Amino acid sequence: MSTEESNIQRTEISELGEFKLIATLTSEFVQVQNSTIKSIGDDAAVIDLGDRAMVITTDLLVEWIHFDLMYTPLKHLGYKAVVVNLSDVYAMNAIPSHITVSISVSNRFSVEALQELYEGIRIACETYKVDLVGGDTTSSPKGLTLSVTAVGFQSKEKITYRNGAKAGDQIYVSGHLGAAYLGLQLLEREKQIYLENPNIQPDLENQDYVVGKFLKPEARKDTILWLAKSGVIPTAMMDLSDGLSSDLLHICKQSQCGAIIDEESVPIHTDAKLLAIKFNLDPITCALNGGEDYELLFCVKAEDTDKLKFLPDFYHIGEITTPDAGTQLRSSSGKLHPLTAQGWNHF
Amino acid sequence: MSTEESNIQRTEISELGEFKLIATLTSEFVQVQNSTIKSIGDDAAVIDLGDRAMVITTDLLVEWIHFDLMYTPLKHLGYKAVVVNLSDVYAMNAIPSHITVSISVSNRFSVEALQELYEGIRIACETYKVDLVGGDTTSSPKGLTLSVTAVGFQSKEKITYRNGAKAGDQIYVSGHLGAAYLGLQLLEREKQIYLENPNIQPDLENQDYVVGKFLKPEARKDTILWLAKSGVIPTAMMDLSDGLSSDLLHICKQSQCGAIIDEESVPIHTDAKLLAIKFNLDPITCALNGGEDYELLFCVKAEDTDKLKFLPDFYHIGEITTPDAGTQLRSSSGKLHPLTAQGWNHF
Repeated sequence: MSTEESNIQRTEISELGEFKLIATLTSEFVQVQNSTIKSIGDDAAVIDLGDRAMVITTDLLVEWIHFDLMYTPLKHLGYKAVVVNLSDVYAMNAIPSHITVSISVSNRFSVEALQELYEGIRIACETYKVDLVGGDTTSSPKGLTLSVTAVGFQSKEKITYRNGAKAGDQIYVSGHLGAAYLGLQLLEREKQIYLENPNIQPDLENQDYVVGKFLKPEARKDTILWLAKSGVIPTAMMDLSDGLSSDLLHICKQSQCGAIIDEESVPIHTDAKLLAIKFNLDPITCALNGGEDYELLFCVKAEDTDKLKFLPDFYHIGEITTPDAGTQLRSSSGKLHPLTAQGWNHF
Repeated sequence: MSTEESNIQRTEISELGEFKLIATLTSEFVQVQNSTIKSIGDDAAVIDLGDRAMVITTDLLVEWIHFDLMYTPLKHLGYKAVVVNLSDVYAMNAIPSHITVSISVSNRFSVEALQELYEGIRIACETYKVDLVGGDTTSSPKGLTLSVTAVGFQSKEKITYRNGAKAGDQIYVSGHLGAAYLGLQLLEREKQIYLENPNIQPDLENQDYVVGKFLKPEARKDTILWLAKSGVIPTAMMDLSDGLSSDLLHICKQSQCGAIIDEESVPIHTDAKLLAIKFNLDPITCALNGGEDYELLFCVKAEDTDKLKFLPDFYHIGEITTPDAGTQLRSSSGKLHPLTAQGWNHF
């Protein structure tokens, strides 16, 4: 009677990885709506509304895959679940306005626990001035799953994609990188210590910065507002969820260009540097390959760089090149090292 | 170290049920966007775009809670997951145009299995002329979860809510009721027989109609197009996902009115009647309380009823009354029985 095993061939999802899987699953879909400006493949989809465009993005967060409630307070989880979606809207240079939140929960969770979760969602809505307008609430056989969808709006000509970078454009990030990854490593280490001996309390002293970057990231609304005030529309932009290397490679691939990043220019917070060294990790590797920083990575025309000079949190890290130059990291000695995607792969 | 057990009080989710839970979780949320016309509490949220409005709705489908892959082909599941969301958009009298689909899957599923699922999603998109524009694809520790969000558009004055019914309005449904519930009962019975003896093949002969209504429902786009052609805007509308009784009570509560449904007018397909009798169930009980029919329930002004007279699948089933009359079923003998909500509660 089973309906699942009708296929003779069996390809494991892990053989493909996320991006190839999505390409395989959606290859036969045909676009029929004229209003679809951008479909799958950017931070958000873009729908034509006439003068304006609407952007829409969605994320699914699954317990034990994306979060661990051993060290993630439910309030922080709710906040983060909203913020990571708003970050995708800002990454299109749009302003988020509405979200929907669906959850499935097992009977392990009490009403009070869910109230904590929704308090985090509420604070994120308040902070970023978005309305929660819908969702679905259901039970699950095991664990907690959250699905958040965010929509936002912007004039069509201001929407920023991943595919507009051109050789000569200057590359920026909106903040320090690698800290979220190190925060996660720290929490995972403390969890292991706790599991081995529950009497030892976690040692997170002086680690507020890295732990905060992981547990309670912010979306860079301020960067988008500064860009607007300066009259600068980036040629390409995305948010850093998988890591600088992996994400820059997306921009290079979609813009059909290369890039050179200067190792010395990549901003890394002192707390992150110190923790990396403590963990015997190379800080630049954490900054390049650590995910979940939710900073913005964007490119601007060379003639626009003057307008960004005195803005807070605009870190110039490199330059877009022609595609034949590849995507490279220039070390302090001037040597070039090809960047590779070592981002998150949940499969 | 655990972050979950900080609450002293513990209220079980099952004590509240879905609607009270949602009310509890969202009670502190404040609306800040002027463009929010309708938030939580209808088939979809409504966002003001000027002349037009956008509607947005989302559903989360969880394996073992909402579907059983023992008897649900993945292609049908994909189709149904899209259709139930489109149904919510039509229930606002809007035309769906775009969807996003997120899935979390365990390694039990092969790429080929997911291709089946997406083939169903693709066929639904093709049938209803909507574009798949985004989503998220991730792993899960166990089982399959689908999250679909649908958006649609309509002139603001044509959007239909649940709260506009007035005494004297006439009540319609777009098709036969109760069949999906009976299809589910049949599949569940055959599953039990199969589990007890895997050599017995399921007996679904001559049950295409009821099984089809459960496994592969359609959204009533045609009803919306007929209404538009007739120049009739319903005063209230919703789609029948929880069952006629439960859903009509939503309209009555939100419209602050009562209703009388004529038992003899409730359309029940012969196949469903016969199966109900075979299962020792009362056909009208199945029609009133069986969920997942995805027909439209709508009210129109008495003066508009002439325009609907000769349309296919417009079943007149009763009348809206003043609130003091309650929400009642009038049996063939003329006796009144109060309708009660016995719809789905997954908690």
